[in-house]
Amino acid sequence: MESYEFLLIIAIILLSTKTFGVLSSHVHMPQVVGALMAGIILGPSCLGVVKETDFLLKTSELGVIILMFIAGLDTDIKELKETGLTSLVVAVLGVIFPLIGGFAAYMAFFADSFDKITVLKGVFIGVVLTATSVSITVETLMEMKKLNGKVGTVILGAAIIDDILGIVSLSFLSGFTDVNANPYMIFTKIGGFFVFMVVVGFAIHYIFRKMEDAVGTKRRVAIYGFAFCLILSYISEKFFGIADITGAYFAGIILCNIAKTRQYIAKKMTVSAYLLFSPIFFAGIGIKTDLHGLNSRFMLFALVLLIIAVTTKILGCGLGAKLCGISTLDSLRIGVGMVSRCEVALIVAEKGMQAGLIDRAVSPAIVLVVIMTTLFTPVMLSFVMKENESEKVTPNNIKYTN
Amino acid sequence: MESYEFLLIIAIILLSTKTFGVLSSHVHMPQVVGALMAGIILGPSCLGVVKETDFLLKTSELGVIILMFIAGLDTDIKELKETGLTSLVVAVLGVIFPLIGGFAAYMAFFADSFDKITVLKGVFIGVVLTATSVSITVETLMEMKKLNGKVGTVILGAAIIDDILGIVSLSFLSGFTDVNANPYMIFTKIGGFFVFMVVVGFAIHYIFRKMEDAVGTKRRVAIYGFAFCLILSYISEKFFGIADITGAYFAGIILCNIAKTRQYIAKKMTVSAYLLFSPIFFAGIGIKTDLHGLNSRFMLFALVLLIIAVTTKILGCGLGAKLCGISTLDSLRIGVGMVSRCEVALIVAEKGMQAGLIDRAVSPAIVLVVIMTTLFTPVMLSFVMKENESEKVTPNNIKYTN
Repeated sequence: MESYEFLLIIAIILLSTKTFGVLSSHVHMPQVVGALMAGIILGPSCLGVVKETDFLLKTSELGVIILMFIAGLDTDIKELKETGLTSLVVAVLGVIFPLIGGFAAYMAFFADSFDKITVLKGVFIGVVLTATSVSITVETLMEMKKLNGKVGTVILGAAIIDDILGIVSLSFLSGFTDVNANPYMIFTKIGGFFVFMVVVGFAIHYIFRKMEDAVGTKRRVAIYGFAFCLILSYISEKFFGIADITGAYFAGIILCNIAKTRQYIAKKMTVSAYLLFSPIFFAGIGIKTDLHGLNSRFMLFALVLLIIAVTTKILGCGLGAKLCGISTLDSLRIGVGMVSRCEVALIVAEKGMQAGLIDRAVSPAIVLVVIMTTLFTPVMLSFVMKENESEKVTPNNIKYTN
Repeated sequence: MESYEFLLIIAIILLSTKTFGVLSSHVHMPQVVGALMAGIILGPSCLGVVKETDFLLKTSELGVIILMFIAGLDTDIKELKETGLTSLVVAVLGVIFPLIGGFAAYMAFFADSFDKITVLKGVFIGVVLTATSVSITVETLMEMKKLNGKVGTVILGAAIIDDILGIVSLSFLSGFTDVNANPYMIFTKIGGFFVFMVVVGFAIHYIFRKMEDAVGTKRRVAIYGFAFCLILSYISEKFFGIADITGAYFAGIILCNIAKTRQYIAKKMTVSAYLLFSPIFFAGIGIKTDLHGLNSRFMLFALVLLIIAVTTKILGCGLGAKLCGISTLDSLRIGVGMVSRCEVALIVAEKGMQAGLIDRAVSPAIVLVVIMTTLFTPVMLSFVMKENESEKVTPNNIKYTN
């Protein structure tokens, strides 16, 4: 490959992900669905024009680190506290149900025995199904102007918590991936990681707060913030054996309640993300995925996994909401609002593949499930939310009129 | 190198370039001086902690492409027309003098004969000295609040023109670097390049103008703009043998008078540039430079080159201004304002090394010259501009009072 060929590759990825993204939004789908599709079309499943290179791999790794950093920065701790217990219960049940469902599906399809590796592989599929995508939920609810109000707030809070639960599960699993490590070491490392994060967190938080007082929001704030995120990502992997993205996410959390700094860094990182890194990350998923591998057995697995992904979220989250005294209809709405999976699911899948705990053959099934839940959520949400209007028109709750 | 080691490398580059940049600005120097110094310290000249990798090379190439794209976008064609003839004469003489001076210095020091390659090498050193850095000039004049007014406007116009002249010279030289190519082919290719740029330019300009009418400024405008820049960069290299950065610069020029689009794209690209790509590009120059190679002969060459770089710009530009009827003092000011070299000089040097027409041994001398002119300009400018104030106080032009 000539030294400047990579410029053309980047241009192709940018043009195709954005064009497919815009097309997605024209049919009221999140743009990320389009970006995923673009990757599948460019990759070996279809045209095969773009191949994995070291540069694309590293850029794509930076892309997911930046995404998780932004997710951390966007965490609204105050809002989280307000929705409180309800969101927590919804999130926890909404994680447990899909975790068990995904595990069961994997074991039913692929397990011959219950040895450690097989169980870990099953758990990984379960973890893939746990995390609701905050961005897609927020985007969908914003488009419907339903983000405020009880249902929206509970969904938002629960989505944030289950993101954290998903990431923490991933960290624990990452700790287990080194087969030579003993459980004692793993827990020590994970414990050490959290202690380290708290100590470093307070110190760095203090430094950035002082910096905001001293210089306000200048470029250096964003640059130092990004460098800090990269260093935490590196340290997580190097010294604690924990996914780099976990470090990036914590870097965001550490800075997330320094009002101006957080907003400034998030804004600048977002520009970098959408201009180059996110398209390469999302397209990269498709570029790595070969849907030719989807024989009838994996296709069936994908279908079962999709049904499990949708039903366990609705049941788990709905039950959680109901237990906290929310009406059945609103509980259903919350459940439906939690169905969409995206970045985190794909990230967990990617990490699973890197650790050898998700077979490359299973990957297309996961991508399909993610795309389908992402397609379903806005459609289902508009259906269950619509009745809200009739409720307002008919105060006696006579449903299905008009 | 472990797969996540590059995260730490990026963090080190970001932290050091920004810290040194901030220190530079504390002593009233442009931040880019600090970034260059950081690279020298990280590289083999000093600590040797950062080594060139394929990822850094490609990121740095993207960095210079983005810089030149922004420079193209920032070109104010209207302003250029207003300063008109004066700027043009200042720019042309300010290019010819250093070109001859640099060529003469190289031949005096290193030439045994006048064969094609040796002459080309000499011309390359001359071209390195031609282009004033717009960004440093503008930054310095803005800090002094002297950007408006005749002196400032002429400097700005001339700096833009000599940037273009520098880039065009580079393109012509790039065409000559392939020793097997015949002159006829080179001129055909360069001619074809300009025809292609005009045709594609009008088409793309039309499309972006229509897009602005249709959607205003959305993310897709910046993404498509960036993709267009990458494609032009690629086509320049691939089909015309002209430097990719020339393509990037023309991509910027093509979009530079679509008011909102230009501003929007430039803003977004600037964020990406300073958050990652520019630091890696500027530090990369230092990382590639081994100042240990500066033996007494090269040190002497650097000193001579520095003297030539400063005096030829002041003489050439000053003479140009004087020929257009500007007062001697103002002509001197214009000359001094044109001394600073930076990005374009380093870019030309980099391209020269890639083409084998600048010896790696000469590179440290060039970096030294760039750093020194960049250090000199603000200091000298503040000295010659200061008298402006006394002029205002003493209308009879009695100088050196107070």
